[in-house]
Amino acid sequence: MNPRPESDTVAVLGPGLLGGSLAMALADRSVKVRIWGRRTSVVEELDRRCPKAFASTDLAAAVSGANVVVLCTPIGAMAEITSRILPHLKDGAVVTDVGSVKAPVVTRLEPIIGSAAHFVGSHPMAGGDQAGIEHARADLFRDAACIVTPSPRSNPAAVQRVTTFWASLGCRLFQLAPDAHDRAMALVSHLPHLAAAALVHAAARADAAALDLAGPGFRDSTRIAMGSAEMWDEILRENGTAMTDAIRALRSELDAVQSALSRGESLTAFLADARATRLRLRR
Amino acid sequence: MNPRPESDTVAVLGPGLLGGSLAMALADRSVKVRIWGRRTSVVEELDRRCPKAFASTDLAAAVSGANVVVLCTPIGAMAEITSRILPHLKDGAVVTDVGSVKAPVVTRLEPIIGSAAHFVGSHPMAGGDQAGIEHARADLFRDAACIVTPSPRSNPAAVQRVTTFWASLGCRLFQLAPDAHDRAMALVSHLPHLAAAALVHAAARADAAALDLAGPGFRDSTRIAMGSAEMWDEILRENGTAMTDAIRALRSELDAVQSALSRGESLTAFLADARATRLRLRR
Repeated sequence: MNPRPESDTVAVLGPGLLGGSLAMALADRSVKVRIWGRRTSVVEELDRRCPKAFASTDLAAAVSGANVVVLCTPIGAMAEITSRILPHLKDGAVVTDVGSVKAPVVTRLEPIIGSAAHFVGSHPMAGGDQAGIEHARADLFRDAACIVTPSPRSNPAAVQRVTTFWASLGCRLFQLAPDAHDRAMALVSHLPHLAAAALVHAAARADAAALDLAGPGFRDSTRIAMGSAEMWDEILRENGTAMTDAIRALRSELDAVQSALSRGESLTAFLADARATRLRLRR
Repeated sequence: MNPRPESDTVAVLGPGLLGGSLAMALADRSVKVRIWGRRTSVVEELDRRCPKAFASTDLAAAVSGANVVVLCTPIGAMAEITSRILPHLKDGAVVTDVGSVKAPVVTRLEPIIGSAAHFVGSHPMAGGDQAGIEHARADLFRDAACIVTPSPRSNPAAVQRVTTFWASLGCRLFQLAPDAHDRAMALVSHLPHLAAAALVHAAARADAAALDLAGPGFRDSTRIAMGSAEMWDEILRENGTAMTDAIRALRSELDAVQSALSRGESLTAFLADARATRLRLRR
């Protein structure tokens, strides 16, 4: 793989945490960046943070001349924006997105783009609990896992182009079919988010004063509950089928512990296995 | 409150992460420290890490002359150790412990100590996922919540002595009855631990390869699953009744989400409320 982002003009549509960070990372690498934001205030903020990029509230102007277009808006806005940029896309342009759920995005955007350009979904697993351009940083993607999700309809060169694009920003690349991606994310991203919110609610409803006693363990395990409610509502619902299975899997673990406790059985093996698995992950 | 630990001789029984850190913190404050460890190798490690302290494998020698004794062993070992130190305790000595579950400890140790000395339970919420003297550090207790758990039988001066003791190490002090402590910990400490282990198992059983994709969110929310399996087995089982209620509370939150998802209802309010509650905690 030989990343050559220098030859690209990249349009970043939606300057939130991911889009803003992407624009900054690309500008740092001397890639020509064109950014679209819906609000004038955000475009002005971009001009301050990323002065080398062209920023505009005009969608046609932003995608003009771009050979890579990255959709960084909420998932629900992607179809409409794709329809609007279609007449302005450069021949052979590659369109990708950063959405956290892939099957619905790929299913909706592929038919819209058709043969006008190439669409390949991707999901750089970067972000955090603080959204918005004000938390953007050029190194957000460094060392992040990024999953490219081609479909049977994907153009192989476009898949490679998207892969190379994220690799050039320091991501560790993976490739999965869209629905396999969504099932995996339900387990390692969306379910933990839901569990974090559920832990906060369980404690707050049963004994709000107990929260004053929360230590580093509770804070770590519920940190992701500070993410945007609107964004996570969209993710959890778009990934509803896989989430139903994931919630069932978590409940089944809790039920097993509950019945072990009620029978006075040891939990050491359950805890030791989880510990060993967790230790194998990067800290 | 006027902390004067300088006038104390403190015996620390059990030099793990908490006991070792406690000995180091006290020695830094020029408090006379006497440490007991079961194994010669640990006592030798203590001599290296905390040369100002007296360290021994002889329990009677360790408590000799101490006016504060802190049990830092696993909960299950505390009754036997208390019986063994009883003949060697100084008149009016105050005995406390650092166990994560308090009602069983208080119920067992109060009758053993009787009027020979004063027992008051306490729980400094310090620690982490890495146990053992090799991770001990003198600032472990700084800014940690510490809950003192007097019973109706507690001597008020001893309660105050224990409170002052932890305050002198930089803890933020709380006071709760032992069973109220245990219910609160079930919610903000023990349930999150269990949920972390359950999340690891749920992902590993359904799709072990998904763990390769785990990002910072999964790592944060499962970090505490790296704690000692034996120690947490003991904690969860000693706090079995409160844990049963806490698991039920978590399940009820998950069920509510599950049925909202199946009806296509928004989760925004659920997530926004959890976010607002979590934001009020210290980061």
